[in-house]
Amino acid sequence: MKFSKYGQQFTKPSSLSQIMDDLGDALRSETPVYLLGGGNPARIDKVNEAYLKAYNSLGAGGIGSSAIESITNYSNPQGDAKFIDTLVDFFHRHYDWQLTRDNIALTNGSQNAFFYLFNLFGGQFAADDGETVTKSILLPLAPEYVGYSDVQIDGKHFIAIKPEIEEVTHEGESGFYKYRVDFDALRDLPALKNGEIGAICCSRPTNPTGNVLTDEEIATLVDIAKQYDVPLIIDNAYGEPFPNVIYPNVKLHWDNNTILCFSLSKIGLPGVRTGIVVAHPEVIKAISSMNAVVNLAPTRFGAAVATPLFEDDTLKQLCDDTIKPFYAKNAKRAVDLIKAELGDYPVFIHKPEGAIFLWVWFKDLPITTTELYDRLKAKNTLIVPSEYFYPGLDIEGFPHAYECVRMSIAADEQTLTAGIKVIGEVVRELYDHR
Amino acid sequence: MKFSKYGQQFTKPSSLSQIMDDLGDALRSETPVYLLGGGNPARIDKVNEAYLKAYNSLGAGGIGSSAIESITNYSNPQGDAKFIDTLVDFFHRHYDWQLTRDNIALTNGSQNAFFYLFNLFGGQFAADDGETVTKSILLPLAPEYVGYSDVQIDGKHFIAIKPEIEEVTHEGESGFYKYRVDFDALRDLPALKNGEIGAICCSRPTNPTGNVLTDEEIATLVDIAKQYDVPLIIDNAYGEPFPNVIYPNVKLHWDNNTILCFSLSKIGLPGVRTGIVVAHPEVIKAISSMNAVVNLAPTRFGAAVATPLFEDDTLKQLCDDTIKPFYAKNAKRAVDLIKAELGDYPVFIHKPEGAIFLWVWFKDLPITTTELYDRLKAKNTLIVPSEYFYPGLDIEGFPHAYECVRMSIAADEQTLTAGIKVIGEVVRELYDHR
Repeated sequence: MKFSKYGQQFTKPSSLSQIMDDLGDALRSETPVYLLGGGNPARIDKVNEAYLKAYNSLGAGGIGSSAIESITNYSNPQGDAKFIDTLVDFFHRHYDWQLTRDNIALTNGSQNAFFYLFNLFGGQFAADDGETVTKSILLPLAPEYVGYSDVQIDGKHFIAIKPEIEEVTHEGESGFYKYRVDFDALRDLPALKNGEIGAICCSRPTNPTGNVLTDEEIATLVDIAKQYDVPLIIDNAYGEPFPNVIYPNVKLHWDNNTILCFSLSKIGLPGVRTGIVVAHPEVIKAISSMNAVVNLAPTRFGAAVATPLFEDDTLKQLCDDTIKPFYAKNAKRAVDLIKAELGDYPVFIHKPEGAIFLWVWFKDLPITTTELYDRLKAKNTLIVPSEYFYPGLDIEGFPHAYECVRMSIAADEQTLTAGIKVIGEVVRELYDHR
Repeated sequence: MKFSKYGQQFTKPSSLSQIMDDLGDALRSETPVYLLGGGNPARIDKVNEAYLKAYNSLGAGGIGSSAIESITNYSNPQGDAKFIDTLVDFFHRHYDWQLTRDNIALTNGSQNAFFYLFNLFGGQFAADDGETVTKSILLPLAPEYVGYSDVQIDGKHFIAIKPEIEEVTHEGESGFYKYRVDFDALRDLPALKNGEIGAICCSRPTNPTGNVLTDEEIATLVDIAKQYDVPLIIDNAYGEPFPNVIYPNVKLHWDNNTILCFSLSKIGLPGVRTGIVVAHPEVIKAISSMNAVVNLAPTRFGAAVATPLFEDDTLKQLCDDTIKPFYAKNAKRAVDLIKAELGDYPVFIHKPEGAIFLWVWFKDLPITTTELYDRLKAKNTLIVPSEYFYPGLDIEGFPHAYECVRMSIAADEQTLTAGIKVIGEVVRELYDHR
């Protein structure tokens, strides 16, 4: 069959799709695989008990129950109205943003929101003189989330800024570093000055690195976005107030020119595919229209399960008391294990400030981490190599981009321990025999 | 904020979006509105009882229950594996298509599937000589589903064939007609002969008309599709075996060059947004990849609720014994009411062969049905005027295209009766005073 050019984007095999297939295969594998590659949230019993309770109450009340109401009716294209009203109240209790229901739309997960936003603010624009201008999405700090790469319908239009790498301590210990935005390079960017940027976007905490942009960095990005009249999109999938897997004491910013994206996935509900966009009413209207065309209406059941848990702040409590400490403990465990395995080698860890990953830098490793991926896979251990996390940056001549790996810390203790042991063995041998 | 050209498609108001907003407002209205406009399935207690039972069993078993498994894990991009395996068995029991799991993908509802398919088979193609060819989706029989209109990402590319209108009887009575494919016009179509068609698509039963393409018409389309090496896409949202709102004794066709689209919406589960695509493995692979990029993975909960109902054919039984008779009865009631109101006027009804609509033709009405829409709306009665159901056909100089309305028959008896009474009054006055 003949596919369109757009369709062909999706049918050509890429090394990343191979890695994704490996992850899928691993989940079905009969031999144990140390799965440190995926983005699945951890299975936390206490959290799942709360979801089960909400699930069962929704089903009470016969065919007039909220469960039946939710599954047997379309929502409107903006998303489940009751959940949106609940979110307005929720944000009103915890932030001074003065949101109304015109500021919130639901999507089929966060990926779906980014598909809309990057095509709304990137790609072909009509210029004042009748000509067409191609605008890119500016990623102020590489590495960034690999899932952004393929969503643009008329080709990839990203421009990313090479990070500054700063040696830092973590809980008094050395061996850590942190990425910083190179604002000089960003301000000098010709595309920005020439009106060829349609939006600025960052994930905070960052997938893959666990970096958290400082309040100062965010304030500067807010100013630059306003100066160039483009929105600042913040992917808050791991941030506060839910799942709240973020450790530095920073502020969650929103204003009329900021688009904040939330998700129910990392609180442990990825199967319900529910993303939440908080933005100017004009953006919300566009997203609703895109929902109508792409999906008719967003799925409702995530909204139904989540509503009671947001109404009385049960979910916020779960995030603060259970989810955040769970990942903090796993991050610490993973750091200790890596230090124990590779403390005597030039291995550095990005300061773990949030999200559910550890980002590990094998400095001067004699092979790329894409090759390391294969060696680890041969020993049933899966990570994600770093080179895929640079959409919009030419990484030729930037060896650091090939020297890191993303490692999930959502796994159980046994998997984490065994997986990091394998990584230690393989990496030590590589350094020892270079 | 500045939106891309693609984004602007979604933010410009259209008369259709106005009608959609009217429908949304009507649902929230405090005064009673006779809602014959939407596509919502009927609320059928016996069916909802089956869904409630399935819902509650899924939640049994604590945090190890299927419900928690479904909502707390991603499926892979192809869709929930257990439901896909259940569907393979289901189709194997009822059809001789010899499907495997490589023939089935899930999407976030049928609209989502058409968004993928029309962009996979329509739009820009790379030609052998390196040039770009724009290919259209051929709709062999207008009127067709209005929801197809806006899904193409690089502009609207549809070509529709003007229907032949045949006077027919229905249950021995006159006053009915049926659309037929004009195969002479179709075969002569320059775009088809020049390789500018990427796929052929029809809904069967047709939304909006309730027409069912005959087995002969389908067989001819199957041949033409093969001859020109393009797939035939059949939108089976209302067809057999679920919801089975189809009355003529016809065959459901599938082969390797046919893409069959099913939906859980019209069995009464629109809130779960679950579409099912049955196609060649190459198409399924492309859809899975598009799921990954647009939605990361399709939503799972519809699959979870539906699985037990498909496993033991409970759902098929519900369709045969409850859903199909329900709509058949409502169609008969609506026909009787219209005949009673307008039997003495040049009003013709498309032979009701399936789906949840009646398509009524007010021949030589002195105003268009878009104007009629406004008069009915002023009397709290909502229908959808016909002119929007002609994607791909230039309807200037084709008065029939402005003389019909789509009327939902999913409403309860009181709404149907009161709504058709209003239509009778308004339309009689129009004819009487012309």
